Order: sequence, then C-alpha cells, then structure tokens
Amino acid sequence: MENLKPSAANSSVLTPLGFLERASIAYSDCSSIIHNTTTYTWSQTHRRCLQLASSIAALLGIKERHVVSVVAFNIPAMYELHFAVPMSGAILNTINTRLDARTISVLLRHSQSRLVFVDQQCRSLVLQSISLFPPNSQPPILVLITDDDDDALMPAPSSSSTVEFTTTYESMVEGGDPRFEWVRPKSEWDPMVLNYTSGTTSSPKGVVHCHRGIFIKTVDSLIDWAVPKQPVYLWTLPMFHANGWCFTWGMAAVGGTNICLRKFDASTVYGLIDRHGITHMCCAPAVLNMLSNSPHNKKEQPLKNPVHILTAGAPPPASVLLRAESLGFVVSHGYGLTETAGLVVSCGWRKEWNSFPAKERARLKARQGVRTIGLAQLDVVDRNTKESVKRDGCSVGEIVVKGGSVMLGYLKDAEATSLCIGNEGWLYTGDVGVMHVDGYLEIKDRRKDVIISGGENVCSAEVESVIYSNPDVEEVAVVARPDELWGETPCAFVSLKKGLDINPCEKDIIEFCRQRLPHFMAPRTVVFKDELPKTSTGKIQKFLLREIAKSLP
Amino acid sequence: MENLKPSAANSSVLTPLGFLERASIAYSDCSSIIHNTTTYTWSQTHRRCLQLASSIAALLGIKERHVVSVVAFNIPAMYELHFAVPMSGAILNTINTRLDARTISVLLRHSQSRLVFVDQQCRSLVLQSISLFPPNSQPPILVLITDDDDDALMPAPSSSSTVEFTTTYESMVEGGDPRFEWVRPKSEWDPMVLNYTSGTTSSPKGVVHCHRGIFIKTVDSLIDWAVPKQPVYLWTLPMFHANGWCFTWGMAAVGGTNICLRKFDASTVYGLIDRHGITHMCCAPAVLNMLSNSPHNKKEQPLKNPVHILTAGAPPPASVLLRAESLGFVVSHGYGLTETAGLVVSCGWRKEWNSFPAKERARLKARQGVRTIGLAQLDVVDRNTKESVKRDGCSVGEIVVKGGSVMLGYLKDAEATSLCIGNEGWLYTGDVGVMHVDGYLEIKDRRKDVIISGGENVCSAEVESVIYSNPDVEEVAVVARPDELWGETPCAFVSLKKGLDINPCEKDIIEFCRQRLPHFMAPRTVVFKDELPKTSTGKIQKFLLREIAKSLP
Repeated sequence: MENLKPSAANSSVLTPLGFLERASIAYSDCSSIIHNTTTYTWSQTHRRCLQLASSIAALLGIKERHVVSVVAFNIPAMYELHFAVPMSGAILNTINTRLDARTISVLLRHSQSRLVFVDQQCRSLVLQSISLFPPNSQPPILVLITDDDDDALMPAPSSSSTVEFTTTYESMVEGGDPRFEWVRPKSEWDPMVLNYTSGTTSSPKGVVHCHRGIFIKTVDSLIDWAVPKQPVYLWTLPMFHANGWCFTWGMAAVGGTNICLRKFDASTVYGLIDRHGITHMCCAPAVLNMLSNSPHNKKEQPLKNPVHILTAGAPPPASVLLRAESLGFVVSHGYGLTETAGLVVSCGWRKEWNSFPAKERARLKARQGVRTIGLAQLDVVDRNTKESVKRDGCSVGEIVVKGGSVMLGYLKDAEATSLCIGNEGWLYTGDVGVMHVDGYLEIKDRRKDVIISGGENVCSAEVESVIYSNPDVEEVAVVARPDELWGETPCAFVSLKKGLDINPCEKDIIEFCRQRLPHFMAPRTVVFKDELPKTSTGKIQKFLLREIAKSLP
Repeated sequence: MENLKPSAANSSVLTPLGFLERASIAYSDCSSIIHNTTTYTWSQTHRRCLQLASSIAALLGIKERHVVSVVAFNIPAMYELHFAVPMSGAILNTINTRLDARTISVLLRHSQSRLVFVDQQCRSLVLQSISLFPPNSQPPILVLITDDDDDALMPAPSSSSTVEFTTTYESMVEGGDPRFEWVRPKSEWDPMVLNYTSGTTSSPKGVVHCHRGIFIKTVDSLIDWAVPKQPVYLWTLPMFHANGWCFTWGMAAVGGTNICLRKFDASTVYGLIDRHGITHMCCAPAVLNMLSNSPHNKKEQPLKNPVHILTAGAPPPASVLLRAESLGFVVSHGYGLTETAGLVVSCGWRKEWNSFPAKERARLKARQGVRTIGLAQLDVVDRNTKESVKRDGCSVGEIVVKGGSVMLGYLKDAEATSLCIGNEGWLYTGDVGVMHVDGYLEIKDRRKDVIISGGENVCSAEVESVIYSNPDVEEVAVVARPDELWGETPCAFVSLKKGLDINPCEKDIIEFCRQRLPHFMAPRTVVFKDELPKTSTGKIQKFLLREIAKSLP
C-alpha cells in the first residue's frame, strides 16, 4: 500500500478553466451568452476566450503572475474575462463599479494591475482614478470594452485626459490565436482571482483564491443549489461580487445560458424572465424585495414557470419570502463570504417541509442552515475559549469555517490574514451566530464592522474614519440600521465638539461623507448625542447603538 | 502573492466521509435506507456508522491501514460499511458475490484482509474460501451480517467447519460508541478503497483509490447526472461494482433514500418503483434490456413518473433504448472503468436533441460522449506514436484519460501499474475508440481482453489459461460474442491436439471451465477449429475471431 503514490495521471490540478473546453464540445451550438441582440454559442465563447487569452499573454508575458483588473457591469466581456484572464496565466481582479475614483485608484495600485479592462460606461470613472496615480508612477495599460449595443454612443475621448486607451476589447479578441494553449497552473494552489472586500483608502483587503479553491466552490455550489443541466441564468448578481458566487464558471460546467444585465430593474427582469425563460438567478434580499414589490406583484400575476432564486447576505424577511413564493419564485437561502469564494452554508431544505404552514416555512428558511458538502467543518465558538458553544439556539459565539474554498489570504497583508486565519486552522468570520439543537446555524449579528446595504459591504470603520476627519466631530460610531428596501443602511452616532460656533446638522455630515466616499457608503441617518455609551474600559458599546438604530422611527 | 500559501484552514483533506455527518443534520429524520420492512433515517445511519467504525477500530486498531473486506449483496449493512470502514481508518474492499470460493480465497489473502463482513447468504461461500487458506496461515476475523428480514432463517453453523464467526454485525453496531471521532485521513492521497477488477487466480488486479479521487468522482457523478436533492435511488447496480460508481457516498451528499435490493428481477423492480417512487437507478445495458422486456412492457403501461437510468459498459442498442424510453425511463449513458472510480465520459445530452426523430436520438445516445467536468483530459491516441488520432469518426486508437479520479495503482503490482499508467501521465484504458468531428468519443472495440457479460468483467486471458490446462487442448482464444440478454458472453475458439482417442465436445469444455471458474466466466459457446488464424509473427488474430463470433447463428 505504501508504494501507491500520486502519479501524473491523477495529479492534474483542480481548476474550473477546463470546463470551457468541455462546454465547447458538449454544448457547442447551444447559447452561452445573450445580451440584448448579441448571442454567442459555447464554441464561440471558447474560441473568443482562447483568442483573448493569447492577446493578454502576448501583451504581458505569462511567466510572472500579473494582475489584470476589470471594471465592468454584467456584460459578455465580463463573463469571458473570467476564463480568458486566468487562461493567460494572469490573476483576475474584478472591481466594484460602485466605488469612487479614489478607491479604484488605490485598488489598482495596491494590486499592481498591469492591464485594466474598462466597460465604456465606467470610462470616465477609471480615467479619473488613473489621474489620481502619483506623478511618476507607471499607469496600467487600458483597454476599452465597447462590444455592447444597448447604450448611448461612446463619448468622444476627453482631450483633457493625459491617459489613453491602448486598444479595444474586440481588437484583442480578433487579433488573438484560437489555437492558443491555455496556461494550466503549475500547482492547484496557484492564485487565480483577487477580490477586494472593502474599499478603504487606508487598508484595502484583497482576498486571493487559488484554482483549487475556486474549483471546489464551483462544483459545491452547483450541487448545493441542485442546478440542472442547461439552466437559463440571469445575471442579477454582479459578477464583481465574489465572481458571482462562482456561478460564472459554474454555468460552463452545466452548459447554461448566461443572460447579461447591466442594471437591476424589476420590470426589465420580468421582461427577461418572459423572453428567455429564465430558470435561475442569484441576488441580495433587497433585490428579492424589489422584485416582489414590483407591479407584477400587484397584479398577482404568477410566473409561467418556477424561477429559482438563491439569496444570501441576510435572511429574507418572512413577508418578502411569502410574496416571492406566491409569485412563483423558489427561494433558497445561504451564507458565505468573499473569503470563502461563495456560499458555504445553506438552508438545506427538505421536501417534507413543503407541507408546513407558510409562517413555519419562512421561519425555517430564515435560518442560514447547514454547511455545504464542499465545506469540511463549520462551528460556532466562544471568542475567548475557542470552544464550541452549546447547541441550544441561544448561546452566541463567532462563526468559524474550515475547508477547501477558504482563501489563501489577503494580498500583501500578512497581519490581517493571520488575524482572520488562526493557528487552529479555522477562518474566523467575525459573524456572530447560534447553533440550533438540530445543528442548523443561525446568524444573530452581522459581521462586527460591516453593514450590508443593498448587497454591498460597507465597512463602518471606513465611514467612521471619514467622519472623524471632520473638524467639528468629537466622536463617532457607525452601525447598521434595518431598512425595508436596502436591508441595512449606515447610521452614524455623532458627538460634536463643545463650543462650536455653528453645530453641523444631519445633512452636513451626510454631504461631508458623500464628497469623500462612494455614495452607498455615506450614512443615511445621523443621530447626535452628547456622549456615546462606553464600557468601563472606554470602548464604545455598539450593540447599544444598534438597538437604538433599530428603534428609530 | 508569493507569501500566500495553503494554510490549515483551507487544506482540509478532500474526502466524501464528511457527507454523512452533514446528512445527519440536513436530512436528519428523512429516510436514508429502506430494505423490505427495515427503514433508517440519516441521523440513525450516521449514528450506526460511528458505532460500527468505533467497533472496527477497537478490533483492529487504527494505526495501520488494514484492509476490511465485505462479501455482501445490496443490503443496508453493505451501504453502512462504505462509510464505517474508512471512518475507522481501514480500507474497504468489496468482493463480487458471484466469484467462486477459490478466487475469493485468493483475494482475501492478496489483500491481507484482517476482517471480513459476510452476508448470511454468502456464508458457505466465504467459509469454503477460508478453508482453502494454506494450513499455517492466519484466517481473518469473520463477522456475520444477519440484519435483514426477507430471507430464510440463518442456517445452523456447519459443525464440520473449522472456522467460526467471531460476532455478528448488529452486535458490533450495538457495542460501538456513537461519540467516536472518525479517523480523518492524514493526506487526501491516503488509500480508501480497494476493488478487484479480475479474479484471476494467478494475478489479481486490485485497484486502489484514495480519498481525494473518491471525493472528486462522487461530486463529479452527481453533477454529470444532474442528481437533484433527495432522490429515491434503487440499488440495481451492485455496490461491489466500483462502489456503485460512487453513488454510495453520493446519496449522502444529496440526502437521497437508498432502496436496497438483493437480486435483480424485473417484476420486483417495477414493484419497488411503484411502492417507493423510485427516481434514479444505475444498471448495465443487459439489465435495462430485461426491464424493457418484462411483462410491464407488453402491457405498455408507462411509469407514473419518469425514472432516470444511468447505464454504462456498452452502449444500449437502439431498440432497447426506444422501448425503455417509451415506458418512461430517461436513459443516460456513460463510460468508465474501475480504474477511474466511476464514469468519466458521458453522452452529454442537449435538450435541443429531444425533438430529433427516435432513431437519430438513439444514434446520438449510443456514443460514449464527452469527458465529465471532473476529468481533466480525454484523448484517443495511436498506440505506437502516442499521438492523437484524427477527429474524423473513423481513425481508431486507444482511449486515454487523465484526472483526479484515476487510481493510485494496482495493489502489490508495480509492473501492471506502470503498464497502465505511462510516464506521459495518461491512464491507458486498453479500450479502442474514435473521436467524432464534434469531439464526441465512441468506443469501437471492447477493452482487448475483457468480455462484459451481464455487467460482469470476464478476462479472456483467465478463461484461456483454464482451457489451456485441459490436456486435450492445443490452442485456445476466448472472445466476446454479442448476446441479446447478457450484452456479451465468452466464446472459446479451440484447436485440439491431433490423434486423440476421443475428441472432447463443446459441453465437455464448458463443464471443465465451470469446475474451475465462476460460472459466469465459463464460455457459453465453443467453436472447434483445426488451426486458429495468426499474424505473420504468430499472434492469434482475435479481431477475426470476434467477427466469426458475431456472425454465429
């Protein structure tokens, strides 16, 4: 038995990149991507990705692991780049289009991006971010994506800009070699993607995942959501959110059709469901809420066929869930982090529960659930003792996970990495939860410093640091305030300096933030206090502020 | 980027064993196994397996990697042992119940089995095999499985036997500790299962798979067959055939219900389909044939709900396929080897093909297809040049594969391992096929020396060596003869020695084989020839004999 060792025949690296070549055979003439009047087949997508990968490799060389960034909405190019960039040997970094130029500038420099693909709708945003580069630094090569047909004509290049686009996306595709041999990683632990979780200008946190982790999360997510072959998948979830929870690569594995969508709008979504026969989509609970509140709901016109929706981030409120189900949506609910490449816990629905009363179904569905088969271990532990809390549904502790899709770490931040991944081999999520008697996990409190607003992570520490920079402010704490539409919004508790000539008002503080932060990060509510509540050791008691924020009228 | 290395948080070994604990939470009170009047839930199965694993570990110790063998039909214990044995740290070896005592004796000794679980229906077979052990050798510990209720009472122990059963299966379960910490493998490359592919008394070939390979094949097979959650799975495929193509562990991953079945019989199967609402089953094409020829077919009574059937080994003939489909079976077709732990190529059906005429559908479905997403590479190469053959649907070559579920190797047979796994990192399957223009694989000839009879592999070399031991025989070659019922049966071409007093007849040769081989390996047909056709270098031209066998009346 001792002589039986791994061989070259079974040690092929685990990577999702091979799914594309397979799809080009198994689903050759089936639709891969549809966007407005553009349609590609899987053999075309395979060919285009090879061509693009060869052009990227020719531009950058493949010996070093360069970072290639993308600032784009859910357009066909965004999908193709999920294969083409790593197939060229580079690392893919998708950037949230809602960030401001300053933050994007920081991320491009932090990641040392050599090449940036830019959606024409993000053109001025990215040009502005490049203009913020320090004078003697080398800006990245810029490539403009103009291949979609639903938008206003491309604006004339701004002559004031000192930076230029080197070429267009389509010329890179056209100029590439379809016989390019894509670069198989030497090790399955080689980095493949980079995703920034918080856009702070002080300490960007870039989550790095390897090929093996992405392979595991992709197959795990397909099984956990029981995705059949050839689904019709609507891209409501931005691909720049943890790579669309790995369903980018997943769609190639099952030969699905990717229906692209630039911006969420309920009536557009209902139109696409009708037109393409959408079977699957992912979204934040806020989006689910908008869907069930749309005019379609008022007419109580049920969907022709069931549409499977996977949602995560926060449990959908029972009322939203019931409305969505009455329309014909089949809602699944899970939990994950950018650090785990997608969902690692899901509600684990049993068909026996279908006969339960609606209210009971909603209560069961609101629990985050059970680890997926791709996650090795899940636990809730006491922060201090590191021991498992009681499985009683009320003892709270920190959620910890262990498994193949846990990130390699944060880019250039060994300290943050080691804070998050302890020596015991667990990833500390920072989220607080309980274990129910039946082994189901339920989250009791959001990740300490994060507010999830419309599916976007807002790091309260970042907002606080901006407000602290206001000379009138004495002290500040930002917490989440529950919101029907957005799930949560940032709520700032501020104590002002004494003896000011004029005290700033709520509007002033909000405006101050909007000038310095992406708009979704600015507080929606500001509460002024003489003093913020503190512990005996002087720590602000955020949990008390959260209670106040919850009860605001 | 260079500092980002694997950590304990993401290096958890890939193994399917954790699926069971998860099923005990996600599907706790749902049915896991049903056999006649016995029903278990997933939390019971989890508990029973932990108890059994603890008893096995207590008996054998867990420091060394012992082999634990099982000789059993598809009964609940057989399913539980697929988890319990590796959870105890031992290696599972399931033995084909159709083998004869002599062969079983060889396999038990070759594998150095320390412990053997014996289905009461295989009791005398195993006792006989132990009696064939050399005088001073240490026989394994025997455990009798008596936990099923559909069979005749257990016969009284034969007093003539010198070996005894140490205990029963149920006492081991009952005596075990449900809080046992199952033994996680140190490395995902640690061996987990052993499966003998040919029972030759001279050179048993024991395929060894590791935890990682089994994990990959299990998730791959679930995705490839698009198995939904909570299927009702009928065990028509023996679990001792490559561990039921990994659906043993797969059913725990999706919370399925395992319907056990000792022996295939069409009317029993139809009864179980009705009674339990079977949704999925696997079988050899011969079994599919029997199902579509059963009385149910004559009444043309379609199934109430579609039943998904996965078949492999040989393409189902168009007539069988059409009959099965008209009854309500949804047939998928694939290709695999014990050496790949299950199917690695599948027909890759597209929903667009559903509208094709029946005959065209059958033609498309008869092709073996496309590699699964878990297989890294598939090719057809020229045996001599090792180069890919043309993708033209007519250039034949040897099928080669590469990927995570390729075996570690053959137990104690480095030579056979290296013959099969070349230095180029491919597993040479020995099967001959062509690549179609569209990239689909089609097998053109069975693996050279293997005849597949009723789903069982018959190694022609073994049968030949037995016939060669007959003093009247000059020369022999055994090839496959196509058979409506069995798929193929062994057909022997024999040239007799000159000047014999009495020439043996067909019946004599068959009887000679049945005395020395498992009955299914004995030839069904014997053709006498003055001389066997040979190449210029004296090699018997088997392909000519195959043609003759095909055309026999």
